[in-house]
Amino acid sequence: MPTPAVVLLSGGLDSATVLAMAGEQGFAAHALTIRYGQRHAIEVDAARRVADRVGVQDHKVIDVNLRLFGGSALTDEVEVPKDTPEELIGREIPATYVPARNTVFLSLALAWAEVLHAQDIFIGVNALDYSGYPDCRPQFLDAFSRMATLATKRGVEGNMRLHIHAPLVHLSKAEIITRGTALGVDYGLTVSCYDPGDHGEGCGSCEACVLRRNGFAAAGVQDPTQYQSGAMHP
Amino acid sequence: MPTPAVVLLSGGLDSATVLAMAGEQGFAAHALTIRYGQRHAIEVDAARRVADRVGVQDHKVIDVNLRLFGGSALTDEVEVPKDTPEELIGREIPATYVPARNTVFLSLALAWAEVLHAQDIFIGVNALDYSGYPDCRPQFLDAFSRMATLATKRGVEGNMRLHIHAPLVHLSKAEIITRGTALGVDYGLTVSCYDPGDHGEGCGSCEACVLRRNGFAAAGVQDPTQYQSGAMHP
Repeated sequence: MPTPAVVLLSGGLDSATVLAMAGEQGFAAHALTIRYGQRHAIEVDAARRVADRVGVQDHKVIDVNLRLFGGSALTDEVEVPKDTPEELIGREIPATYVPARNTVFLSLALAWAEVLHAQDIFIGVNALDYSGYPDCRPQFLDAFSRMATLATKRGVEGNMRLHIHAPLVHLSKAEIITRGTALGVDYGLTVSCYDPGDHGEGCGSCEACVLRRNGFAAAGVQDPTQYQSGAMHP
Repeated sequence: MPTPAVVLLSGGLDSATVLAMAGEQGFAAHALTIRYGQRHAIEVDAARRVADRVGVQDHKVIDVNLRLFGGSALTDEVEVPKDTPEELIGREIPATYVPARNTVFLSLALAWAEVLHAQDIFIGVNALDYSGYPDCRPQFLDAFSRMATLATKRGVEGNMRLHIHAPLVHLSKAEIITRGTALGVDYGLTVSCYDPGDHGEGCGSCEACVLRRNGFAAAGVQDPTQYQSGAMHP
């Protein structure tokens, strides 16, 4: 029987790639999508399509309304910054930062992992493109892993050590796209935009769209993304 | 302006005591109740009554359905073990353990703390009575604090170090009751039972009821708990 792993699957480009990588490494993927009150709930539909296409052991969608706390353009009703100059990306913590998001996401993954007796959690964080998010850095992931091993029944009994896999952490967006394309990921199913159209079309100009467009260009891979009419194309 | 703190408030005896202690220490309490799919949702009503009575800065109730993952008598549809012999309490990890519960709870508290610019989180864990729960131990809380400081914007900027307050961690149930009674906590508002009646009456025989009853007896404090008719009284 293959080894179970919990894979955090947002419906975006990065986590779709991570899901394919987990399968390549021989894990039986249990995909977990967290509906945290984000405006782009269209991502959850994308996650379902990606999970269906890749073929997972199980896919669960859990709700946790982080909007309740406020504090971010992604969950508040405020304007998403458009046309973020590329030289600023990664320089400072962006307004789209959701407080403690990855801590909450990894905690929920840990709960499922413990039930599954899984020791492996996959997350698509990326320290290069998103170095402004503190909870995407390797130091954070190491600290989470240490904490999680102490938190669990099997960790305390000495039968497991939780392993957080972040296979994208040192890859550029172009490298991610190159790896995923080699693994057969259909990026046309994924949504990255912070402010997508009704069918998941990208706005073309938010930070996520800019990183995605530039990534496809740098990888020399055809960009399958649908952009909203009137959006700037590369 | 008083310093804000997030206080995890379940509606049970322990967290009601912690809320009073946070106030005694001069913090402006932001109470957080997490409805995690537990069968005893009656606790949430108790939490509202306790927050109202004590007087808090704010009280939020957030839903996260940990039943989705299964794995515990508290969230699964299985029988709660009754008449747990007292000598077994704390000896092994109980069947009522909810996977990664305190990790999830503290992560949600962290999200709110970050929005509030709060550096303090209070949690009513207790290492003596519940030593079987790995995520109640001081080593776990220290590891969570280190992880959380690395997870947050202000932690990375060096402007904060998250402090997890667990003022009950080394107290017996009797000591908790003595402290809370001195602070004016109305334990008649709280619910501890794993399998309460429709109005929060204790079954009198589950692990939580046994610990509670014995705690009042040992503290020499009148037990204000309503027990179900037919329940064994001390």
